[in-house]
Amino acid sequence: MFPTLQLKSPHHITPKRVSYRLQNIKLQQFRSYQELDFDFTNQITVITGANGHGKTNLLEAIYTLSLGQSFRTNDYTNLVNWDSDYSRITAKINQAGIDTIESFFSRHPKRKNYKIDGVNQKQSQFIGHLQTVLFHPEDLNMLYLSPLYRRRYLDIILSQTDREYLIALTNYRKVIKHKNALLKQIQKKALEFGPDIKDTDLEIWNFQLVDFASTIIKSRHDFLKRLNTDITGIYQGISDHHEEIAISYKNKATANQPSTDNLNDQLHRLLEEYKSREILSGKSLIGPHRDDIIFTMDHHNINDSASRGEFRTLLLAIKLAEIDYITEKTGRSPLLLLDDVFSELDIHRQNHLLNAVKGSQAIITTTAVNPDHQILNASDSLGVVQIDDLC
Amino acid sequence: MFPTLQLKSPHHITPKRVSYRLQNIKLQQFRSYQELDFDFTNQITVITGANGHGKTNLLEAIYTLSLGQSFRTNDYTNLVNWDSDYSRITAKINQAGIDTIESFFSRHPKRKNYKIDGVNQKQSQFIGHLQTVLFHPEDLNMLYLSPLYRRRYLDIILSQTDREYLIALTNYRKVIKHKNALLKQIQKKALEFGPDIKDTDLEIWNFQLVDFASTIIKSRHDFLKRLNTDITGIYQGISDHHEEIAISYKNKATANQPSTDNLNDQLHRLLEEYKSREILSGKSLIGPHRDDIIFTMDHHNINDSASRGEFRTLLLAIKLAEIDYITEKTGRSPLLLLDDVFSELDIHRQNHLLNAVKGSQAIITTTAVNPDHQILNASDSLGVVQIDDLC
Repeated sequence: MFPTLQLKSPHHITPKRVSYRLQNIKLQQFRSYQELDFDFTNQITVITGANGHGKTNLLEAIYTLSLGQSFRTNDYTNLVNWDSDYSRITAKINQAGIDTIESFFSRHPKRKNYKIDGVNQKQSQFIGHLQTVLFHPEDLNMLYLSPLYRRRYLDIILSQTDREYLIALTNYRKVIKHKNALLKQIQKKALEFGPDIKDTDLEIWNFQLVDFASTIIKSRHDFLKRLNTDITGIYQGISDHHEEIAISYKNKATANQPSTDNLNDQLHRLLEEYKSREILSGKSLIGPHRDDIIFTMDHHNINDSASRGEFRTLLLAIKLAEIDYITEKTGRSPLLLLDDVFSELDIHRQNHLLNAVKGSQAIITTTAVNPDHQILNASDSLGVVQIDDLC
Repeated sequence: MFPTLQLKSPHHITPKRVSYRLQNIKLQQFRSYQELDFDFTNQITVITGANGHGKTNLLEAIYTLSLGQSFRTNDYTNLVNWDSDYSRITAKINQAGIDTIESFFSRHPKRKNYKIDGVNQKQSQFIGHLQTVLFHPEDLNMLYLSPLYRRRYLDIILSQTDREYLIALTNYRKVIKHKNALLKQIQKKALEFGPDIKDTDLEIWNFQLVDFASTIIKSRHDFLKRLNTDITGIYQGISDHHEEIAISYKNKATANQPSTDNLNDQLHRLLEEYKSREILSGKSLIGPHRDDIIFTMDHHNINDSASRGEFRTLLLAIKLAEIDYITEKTGRSPLLLLDDVFSELDIHRQNHLLNAVKGSQAIITTTAVNPDHQILNASDSLGVVQIDDLC
């Protein structure tokens, strides 16, 4: 039992031979797939089929090659088909001197492995060779749920475009892990034997933390400043309304100053000030892992006032700004993965999205294609593909 | 500038004079509304209009009369129109000897107030006079995001149908708040002066906690047992597939036993066992505020395997089971609030939802009504209403 992809002739427009970035994907034992081997011969690939037949799984596989991890699960063993112990995703990307990239996940023993042109790579080396922008119905959560989702958004976009950020982030997470373990230890000892604890080690961790934290905060600051410049115009263009959108970065170290000057000093000062509170709570309270993004619309926090329609418009505006940002930063337009999002947008917003799609390679999933749908006119190289479950 | 509701004649079918539960609603300074006075003369009311014109706000007002709080914000001052300092929602429900229910929220001074037939009530007395079941696109979060959302789901349905549960929950939250404050105190003292801390007070709180916790856990257990009996049948009916759905309650005190026997003893034992860990973390670690619901499909956790389509089907099945449960428990079918959910469902699932709607009073929002849409044939008492923004 395995789903395969079949090209449906009626919608299959003769492809121009353009060298797209993602040319072929091979899946072995990935989620519902036992085997899949598929050529992307068109600039835009529309994948249709009923619910539960593996459309999102295919986008997930591509995304996993881009970021080294899924957008749906933190446990990579979930990516392995239930009937198998391992899973492999291989893509031909044929760009910047690279032919193939590959992810391998195994359940027994628990192991993950990344390769570029057959050579093993660390995850941090692997990320950034296939830039993707994912449009996903659950993206909306980013705007109104916990700060965790907004930090994750920043980390995903900046990790893909800025190697220095990715390295600082990886190291920062290690430092925070060690520091938290130490804080718990200090806390526990103080509870058992009284407060006479030497914290030289804590200062060593704090010292390391400041450098990585500073790199992360500066990049986030710069990115949001850039986004802030573009977002109101894009939002107004989509909505035909005159709301003014503002995006700001909420961070203790830059709270009372508009820039990131003297950031290291500020962080050192804050770490000293919060030391006893950190020991008391057994957790690191200062640093970019506690920061947030604040979105306002006409000076009100969007969580206090925006409707779902306004949330959707804002999200679309952010995604379009993101495409611009990645294109400018990397000199290439990112691969767009659109997971079942057209049904959530009205026709006006669909058009905006289609315009953004035009210049890029895009893979679009949808439960049904209406023959009159504008998507079919979006590009002269478009293929409609039907996922069939051959069970 | 205030939106009003106008009846559009073409879709307005002559109403049968049935005494529905919610007969009239009046809004003053609620969200985008300055004033609204609307009669529900039909069993099913479909509210159409563009995004951002106040459709969801109207459902939110009704929901707020049902639960005493919003489903979109925890801060009730957000419900007050930006240009005003207070907000009032009044409804004629005309049932079980009650004519009107009213919520009042004020920003300056920060205050909330509930009335039944003009007499002030505590929030806990106010809840349960207008049972609602809300269908909302963000409901899906409940299935895959943090346990917080699943506990919230249980609290909402059980608070509406079981006064004993509501009272236990209110008291339990107070006890946990006091206990957490005390734990933080003990933790702080131990860190400053060493571990010689008397914890008699802690035991007093634990003693109170056990009774309330036990009531809450038993009710949740019973409800989920009931849901578990129905859910596979309902799910298979909607999906035409043969997946077996199981719902279980994850709780430390009942972890190794199928029933809630000896629950109080178990809780006391656990609280004793976890005492030092609770002091160390400065938080209550044992009790229903840490529990979760686990959904499985063919014995796999749905978070590891289900597609978005399967999530949507499961959510729909849960909601339909919820309607049955409330109807059976209270002897009345609940008021159904459907917020822009039809666009997310395929035609097969829409039909299932429409069948469920048939016996109940329902208020449905949608951006556009297709004249061919089945919703228009769902009832012989249906009115389509257009939200117009008269700015």
